[in-house]
Amino acid sequence: MKNPQLNEHGELQHLLSVEGLPRDTLLHILDTADSFIGITDREVKKVPLLRGKSVFNLFFENSTRTRTTFEIAAKRLSADVINLNINTSSTTKGETLLDTVDNLSAMHADMFIVRHASSGAPYLIAQHVASHLHVINAGDGRHAHPTQGLLDIYTIRHYKRDLSALSVAVVGDVLHSRVARSLIHALTTLGVPDVRVIGPKTLLPAGVEKLGVKVFHDMNHGLAGCDVVVMLRLQNERMNGSLLPSAQEFFKSYGLTPEKLALAKPDAIVMHPGPMNRGVEIDSAVADGPHSVILPQVTFGIAVRMAVMSILAGN
Amino acid sequence: MKNPQLNEHGELQHLLSVEGLPRDTLLHILDTADSFIGITDREVKKVPLLRGKSVFNLFFENSTRTRTTFEIAAKRLSADVINLNINTSSTTKGETLLDTVDNLSAMHADMFIVRHASSGAPYLIAQHVASHLHVINAGDGRHAHPTQGLLDIYTIRHYKRDLSALSVAVVGDVLHSRVARSLIHALTTLGVPDVRVIGPKTLLPAGVEKLGVKVFHDMNHGLAGCDVVVMLRLQNERMNGSLLPSAQEFFKSYGLTPEKLALAKPDAIVMHPGPMNRGVEIDSAVADGPHSVILPQVTFGIAVRMAVMSILAGN
Amino acid sequence: MKNPQLNEHGELQHLLSVEGLPRDTLLHILDTADSFIGITDREVKKVPLLRGKSVFNLFFENSTRTRTTFEIAAKRLSADVINLNINTSSTTKGETLLDTVDNLSAMHADMFIVRHASSGAPYLIAQHVASHLHVINAGDGRHAHPTQGLLDIYTIRHYKRDLSALSVAVVGDVLHSRVARSLIHALTTLGVPDVRVIGPKTLLPAGVEKLGVKVFHDMNHGLAGCDVVVMLRLQNERMNGSLLPSAQEFFKSYGLTPEKLALAKPDAIVMHPGPMNRGVEIDSAVADGPHSVILPQVTFGIAVRMAVMSILAGN
Repeated sequence: MKNPQLNEHGELQHLLSVEGLPRDTLLHILDTADSFIGITDREVKKVPLLRGKSVFNLFFENSTRTRTTFEIAAKRLSADVINLNINTSSTTKGETLLDTVDNLSAMHADMFIVRHASSGAPYLIAQHVASHLHVINAGDGRHAHPTQGLLDIYTIRHYKRDLSALSVAVVGDVLHSRVARSLIHALTTLGVPDVRVIGPKTLLPAGVEKLGVKVFHDMNHGLAGCDVVVMLRLQNERMNGSLLPSAQEFFKSYGLTPEKLALAKPDAIVMHPGPMNRGVEIDSAVADGPHSVILPQVTFGIAVRMAVMSILAGN
Repeated sequence: MKNPQLNEHGELQHLLSVEGLPRDTLLHILDTADSFIGITDREVKKVPLLRGKSVFNLFFENSTRTRTTFEIAAKRLSADVINLNINTSSTTKGETLLDTVDNLSAMHADMFIVRHASSGAPYLIAQHVASHLHVINAGDGRHAHPTQGLLDIYTIRHYKRDLSALSVAVVGDVLHSRVARSLIHALTTLGVPDVRVIGPKTLLPAGVEKLGVKVFHDMNHGLAGCDVVVMLRLQNERMNGSLLPSAQEFFKSYGLTPEKLALAKPDAIVMHPGPMNRGVEIDSAVADGPHSVILPQVTFGIAVRMAVMSILAGN
Repeated sequence: MKNPQLNEHGELQHLLSVEGLPRDTLLHILDTADSFIGITDREVKKVPLLRGKSVFNLFFENSTRTRTTFEIAAKRLSADVINLNINTSSTTKGETLLDTVDNLSAMHADMFIVRHASSGAPYLIAQHVASHLHVINAGDGRHAHPTQGLLDIYTIRHYKRDLSALSVAVVGDVLHSRVARSLIHALTTLGVPDVRVIGPKTLLPAGVEKLGVKVFHDMNHGLAGCDVVVMLRLQNERMNGSLLPSAQEFFKSYGLTPEKLALAKPDAIVMHPGPMNRGVEIDSAVADGPHSVILPQVTFGIAVRMAVMSILAGN
């Protein structure tokens, strides 16, 4: 079966998921992102790589934060950006979703950045559009959020250089996290030997070991000797539900405090995809402390998105 | 009485309605649109014709779809585009509408794209603004939607070249359609000899024959030998109301199926202004079939809007 | 204590309030604005001063009108503009406000235009951000709206040239007006000798005389011999409340009519920050009459905002 993310020459056609991305493609994105880091530090933060291209932010689910990262990345590549917040209530049928996409394609769109509450929606769109069009998944249901996974692995590589001897712990609500899924695929594809997931049974997917990770329910055991700690956001709707006793209990067991972080390596880095629930999954002393690379993640995220867009536009 | 759309040299000053547009002006817009078709196919889809101009999308009625077409057209002309969604509830008095317009004019606006639920609002604005300002009607109440009418006639001319021997059928809810009104005026102005409207009595305006069209209530009779079939959108609010028995009944009588389309000429084209109600006014087999030029309409619509804006900016 | 608006070289770092701005800084802004007046009259209304800079319109309180003035000013300076309407309900904690700001800063923002319902929010942000970032207050609670104050003083200087012998009356709801506060500070800083506030006791702040103004409750006395009359908007929520008997009563006592305006100097100018309540604080005959400079205020406002942004970007 054909890889839906690659064209007939094996080049990146769409970015839909980190799962299924060949190792070389993944490395090509990270290396290209390196070249964009300098641009965002320059006086004039623009390059003309996407000049005259039309990038549509097609958000069927509202996310100001994610939309902004793609908008700024596209504008720094000199693209024309059109923001579309499309209420899913007006597109109840799959047909209508594709009619909307056909319409925008007919306006000579070059790229769709798609956010959708339903897993798989970006795949449906990618299968449907003409071959000069490119789709980037900006988060689909619980399935994937590949640019987040890529910026996470970019950040780890930036700080740790050699991935071949790392221990990485992913902590918290892995079950509902498309971020975790994308990152775990990136880590295993690039040969990180020791990937751990830490969380209560109710927040870890059944059979998660099959992804090549070790499972820990005790955070103290899981963090021991780690190089990288990735904290996940605990969605508000989980906190008062049946899956968790309370936010306070969660923090006690799985919140990252300076004491728990001391179990990891002395030069461990702490990551979080944002937005943070301070005092729930992470203590402010850690979030704002010397191990935190949470804000650099955001900066690298712009470079990674510029890299993905410029690679797609060139293929 | 002075034509409100033309300046003292007889040049286009505002685009408010297809009705009242001189034949030469109409042809000038279509010919200019021809020159923009190539641009949207180019690698860099931009020309500097409106560089430094400020185009305001002044939408008193929400329409993401229409706003997007104008935004992309203006950006491809290198204009600065400002989107304003103005809730009509905050502008209850005509005075306030004009104060809003005066304010934006004082910011050195060059062009207003106006969408308003009240028929005539763009005329009020056009009468009020200074002579260096241009107004484009992007849909006012049931009255007019001239760029849609222009892109429809552009599409017909593109596929049929010679307009002087054509039969064009406009089918469905003509009564509530500003699209139908704009198109009928364009067709009669350019000398299309046979224009037909097809629909139930409750959805055709009284005295529609005075526009120079033939009236049919039986779709099979109306489609016979047609070169062009223009299907209109059936607004959802009409479907369960007193004007129609039901959407299913409407489809049976006036929905375009392959069987009914077979009554038209073998090379007939099928048009629809979008968004489509598949299974209500049009069958998917027709919408996606070989006669459909519904998506090319969208593509031509961008070129037509670029043409109108560049003509206005030059006058 | 350090002036939060100036950097270590005494140059403008943030624009937070007219209060506390040195006289030289204030004059530098007005003189720079002079140089931008010509640009907005040109065929191509753009200069490349902010090319490649990222300006974020960070609106925690919705204001289409104010957002538009900053957006158009930034685009005419060739900046990339990102609009963010952030519902304050999702940022209930000060921490979260700063996390949002940290995030956007990490995307290499250059400038934040901040509108917030809480007085002081732009100060909090300005204290928090790195030194290459600039904050402009676009209105915080009842506290300040400095670009409005600056455009008001710009307008007065434009029409009256010599400020050293002027009488300026500010009329209406001074109590709830951040516009009045900003303007009074600008007037006294630039040495206008006679500044008057006119209004009912319930709408004047206690101890307003300490700002260096004369207080009048009788509008006829207050307007006598004035060079400039600045009418304030009466917020709708004040009209039916306990502070005022009714809008009609207010108009009778404090609405600016041609008769009352006749008490001012024959060449007096009339200003209003907009949007106007015609028939409440101002009669249409005055608003649209020969003394009104209400629309030029808007035009000058764009030049003043371009001046502030270009000065900040250069420091």
